[in-house]
Amino acid sequence: MKSDIEIARSIALKNIQEIAESINLPSDPLIPYGKHIAKVPLDQQLKEQIEKSNLILVTSITPTKAGIGKTTVSIGLALGLNKIGKKAVVALREPSLGPCFGMKGGAAGGGYAQVLPMENINLHFTGDFHAITSAHNTISALLDNYIYRTSGSENALKEVLWKRVLDVNDRSLRYIVTGLHGSANGIPQESGFDITPASEIMAILCLSENMDDLRRRIEKILLGYKKDGSLFTVKDLGVAGAITVLLKDALQPNLVQTTENTAAFIHGGPFANIAHGCNSVIATKMAMSYGDYVITEAGFGADLGAEKFFDIKCRKAGLNPKLTIIVATAQGLKMHGGVPVEDIKKENAEGIVKGLENLQKHIQNLRSFGQNIVIAFNRYSSDTDLEMTLIEKFCKDENIDFAINNAFSEGGEGAVELANLVVNSIEQNPSKKLELVYENEDAIDTKIEKVARKIYGANSVIFGNSALKKLKQIEKNAEMSQFPVCIAKTQYSFSADATAYGVAQNFDIHINDLVINNGAEFIVAIAGDIMRMPGLPKVPQANHIDLVNGFVEGLS
Amino acid sequence: MKSDIEIARSIALKNIQEIAESINLPSDPLIPYGKHIAKVPLDQQLKEQIEKSNLILVTSITPTKAGIGKTTVSIGLALGLNKIGKKAVVALREPSLGPCFGMKGGAAGGGYAQVLPMENINLHFTGDFHAITSAHNTISALLDNYIYRTSGSENALKEVLWKRVLDVNDRSLRYIVTGLHGSANGIPQESGFDITPASEIMAILCLSENMDDLRRRIEKILLGYKKDGSLFTVKDLGVAGAITVLLKDALQPNLVQTTENTAAFIHGGPFANIAHGCNSVIATKMAMSYGDYVITEAGFGADLGAEKFFDIKCRKAGLNPKLTIIVATAQGLKMHGGVPVEDIKKENAEGIVKGLENLQKHIQNLRSFGQNIVIAFNRYSSDTDLEMTLIEKFCKDENIDFAINNAFSEGGEGAVELANLVVNSIEQNPSKKLELVYENEDAIDTKIEKVARKIYGANSVIFGNSALKKLKQIEKNAEMSQFPVCIAKTQYSFSADATAYGVAQNFDIHINDLVINNGAEFIVAIAGDIMRMPGLPKVPQANHIDLVNGFVEGLS
Repeated sequence: MKSDIEIARSIALKNIQEIAESINLPSDPLIPYGKHIAKVPLDQQLKEQIEKSNLILVTSITPTKAGIGKTTVSIGLALGLNKIGKKAVVALREPSLGPCFGMKGGAAGGGYAQVLPMENINLHFTGDFHAITSAHNTISALLDNYIYRTSGSENALKEVLWKRVLDVNDRSLRYIVTGLHGSANGIPQESGFDITPASEIMAILCLSENMDDLRRRIEKILLGYKKDGSLFTVKDLGVAGAITVLLKDALQPNLVQTTENTAAFIHGGPFANIAHGCNSVIATKMAMSYGDYVITEAGFGADLGAEKFFDIKCRKAGLNPKLTIIVATAQGLKMHGGVPVEDIKKENAEGIVKGLENLQKHIQNLRSFGQNIVIAFNRYSSDTDLEMTLIEKFCKDENIDFAINNAFSEGGEGAVELANLVVNSIEQNPSKKLELVYENEDAIDTKIEKVARKIYGANSVIFGNSALKKLKQIEKNAEMSQFPVCIAKTQYSFSADATAYGVAQNFDIHINDLVINNGAEFIVAIAGDIMRMPGLPKVPQANHIDLVNGFVEGLS
Repeated sequence: MKSDIEIARSIALKNIQEIAESINLPSDPLIPYGKHIAKVPLDQQLKEQIEKSNLILVTSITPTKAGIGKTTVSIGLALGLNKIGKKAVVALREPSLGPCFGMKGGAAGGGYAQVLPMENINLHFTGDFHAITSAHNTISALLDNYIYRTSGSENALKEVLWKRVLDVNDRSLRYIVTGLHGSANGIPQESGFDITPASEIMAILCLSENMDDLRRRIEKILLGYKKDGSLFTVKDLGVAGAITVLLKDALQPNLVQTTENTAAFIHGGPFANIAHGCNSVIATKMAMSYGDYVITEAGFGADLGAEKFFDIKCRKAGLNPKLTIIVATAQGLKMHGGVPVEDIKKENAEGIVKGLENLQKHIQNLRSFGQNIVIAFNRYSSDTDLEMTLIEKFCKDENIDFAINNAFSEGGEGAVELANLVVNSIEQNPSKKLELVYENEDAIDTKIEKVARKIYGANSVIFGNSALKKLKQIEKNAEMSQFPVCIAKTQYSFSADATAYGVAQNFDIHINDLVINNGAEFIVAIAGDIMRMPGLPKVPQANHIDLVNGFVEGLS
């Protein structure tokens, strides 16, 4: 089979205006970025259509190094639905440059279920992440200038919380000291860089309902504490307007097309392990304005992405998915069943059965949200009939519908079975009103404990000193106490131990620190040794990327 | 009079396709970024037209805090030339976000001589600077990963030269230590950030003739030295392809329009005080492919911008301007004549006469390059007739043509006199073949000394220890020894002392360090205490920028 990029290149793309018109989105107000990408002005949202649209969440079993293919299922399902005559649109997250050049690769789907032009989407795209990086670091510079100018005065800050971001995998930037070499060069301070998707600005962009809401949230960003212990925010710095200006274009969702020339929205940040990890509320609602079925995804396994999708994004934006799809693969299940990675292409019934416990735990979790569930199975050529039978039996026992997705190799045709199942399921048994894991009124530590116990299966939560100190600061603030929590944790396990595959048992969750995202209106809890700035592997993907005869090679 | 942004907003913009067609540039291959900005594919360059086009350089007297208005003259002249029936196109530099939010403001001209849409041009534009920031810092991350992976091995580097960049004014990032908090987070190292326009990648983008040349130069970038003393480059890191991919769109020049709907190219970096400070060779040649008269500018005063334009850009790209325009203002001249800034709006004949010495020195310098010269005078309402008479008399004595530019308040109509003068001057007395300050064969220290003595008027050049060490490394390398030099020096004086206005006398130039830009193919010499990362003033421009009713306020 051809590589992703070969397939991408073989597709005849339609002008983006034509794509817009295919979903009755007026093409004239579009802001083109080349011939095949456009930003859509915010006023194109149609409130009454949003109510009628069927929102579908795609999530997955706990991911393994083998990969699961969630984006491929999301796009494939949209293609399948369009094939059977439904009007379906996907709303996905934008890829980050860090993993593109590091280990994970791009995030534009795969095979015959991709969003295009994949090179642009995986690289600078419409500059949204660059705008977020600029906005974040402009605040950092303005804040450091304030610190420099007020040093030793009564206006000096007592504590500084704000760091910096870059969209790159650079472990050397995690912990740095700035302002060295004398007083002309600032005040020496500890600082550090997170990757851009972990920026609070990314979360603000993804959760804002409109431009006014964006500005309101930017004003609220907590940068540090004044000497009297009160909050020092971007509003106090006097630059909320300038930062809003830097983000005004980035707030508009991006329209592209699939490998079958259907409409797709791609907007906002990835990484549900270190951020809330959903695409933007604005893009989801724009997709719902023009699609009867809207497929969106939440990052990594359901314990991370789906939980945050429900407890943060749906809670804030008033969304209620009609269905949740869990993506699984035989190879992934075998890894959860204890099969070493070098053996996962060999038949292993015992491994499958044991691995299904991971899927079962995710099913239980998602049912606790009141969600109707369908399993989408990405079948590979090495998967045997025996293995398929075992998985089918499991689904029957769990009373859950199940379909194989072949969109990777067949496009929409390969997802027709899944599409029919999804339509039936939504018509006959739509999800109930969302039952969230915790109430707004629960204390922040209670919220974290509820997620850790109910979703992760932890025995208890242990807060480190820094986290305890922040808990006290938050408790004093009535508004912050109402915020949802965004737990940053490894994606490879229900626990914070990346090596505990399957269903981790008898573990505690250690919360080492809390980060107050006062503008995003959630509290980030850092579980275990999760890093908000990734590193690079021994041989980064960058070593395989090249421009050959004008074409990009090595992106996937 | 209306503010720049009010004027900008009052202009009815034409579609960029129409602008392209107005200069016979085919509109179909354009890559639109919104309705009023487009990138132009490299293959649209017309070699035979370039030969015929008249290139005009706009430079200025030594700038003062009062501002001179070089960009306004460049755009105004193009408007004036178009007014008198000539086909004129400007080729300008892109603004940097740092000064936009800091002190200097934007760089899109002013009044009725602007390039539009100025908000986009001054903010993210087509993402070129962001691509350069990404490319630079991706190299940094890959290099640090190499250092991390080879630490203690025979492949470990002996010396690391490469730093990082951000397009922001942040003094705290000048000197930092990275890789702190244990071995999982890299190797502790000294590092630092320059502003993006000072990136070697910016210089490479501006000097590359085409995509292959870009790639060739990226491969050559010197990152450090191996244990055996040999060079360690981006090619050795194995990522030249990936970095080229990140820059492939940024290499295409950007087409916009002026306040009178004529074509303008804006591409590549500013800052002739800390970089070579010209727009890209590709944009200049694209403008020359479609304009009979092409006006380009070089940053700050002629000692910095024009010298580098001739000795670096023209030397490499084979360009030969027909004319150089020196922009002057009465207020600027008075400051050079010793008048304090608070008194420059009052008539002061003595101040003017004394200040004209600065203009005279620039005239002598530019004549030494073989350039035919015209003086463009930006007149303000506070300038008196007596002052004008003195300036006119000076120009007559110098046997130099002189015109007043009123394009700021009148648009092209206000630059008709200047335009006629320029056309006559080029027809009757075009510049001779460029006489460069130094030969390729001169040693690097000789090249620096020649610029310092001939152009700056220095007594001698004193090299610091670090510069001497680098000189020795360069001397060992036959190719590097042939490179031109790019002297980073304050823009406010012929000397390296920013307070020495007028014509500085009896001074030495201290070169504290050399930076080998092996890919850009020049040697940066750091003179005095010039900083390649600016700081922010007490009240940054960011505090005045806002989004009001959907419109950007506070940009200029």
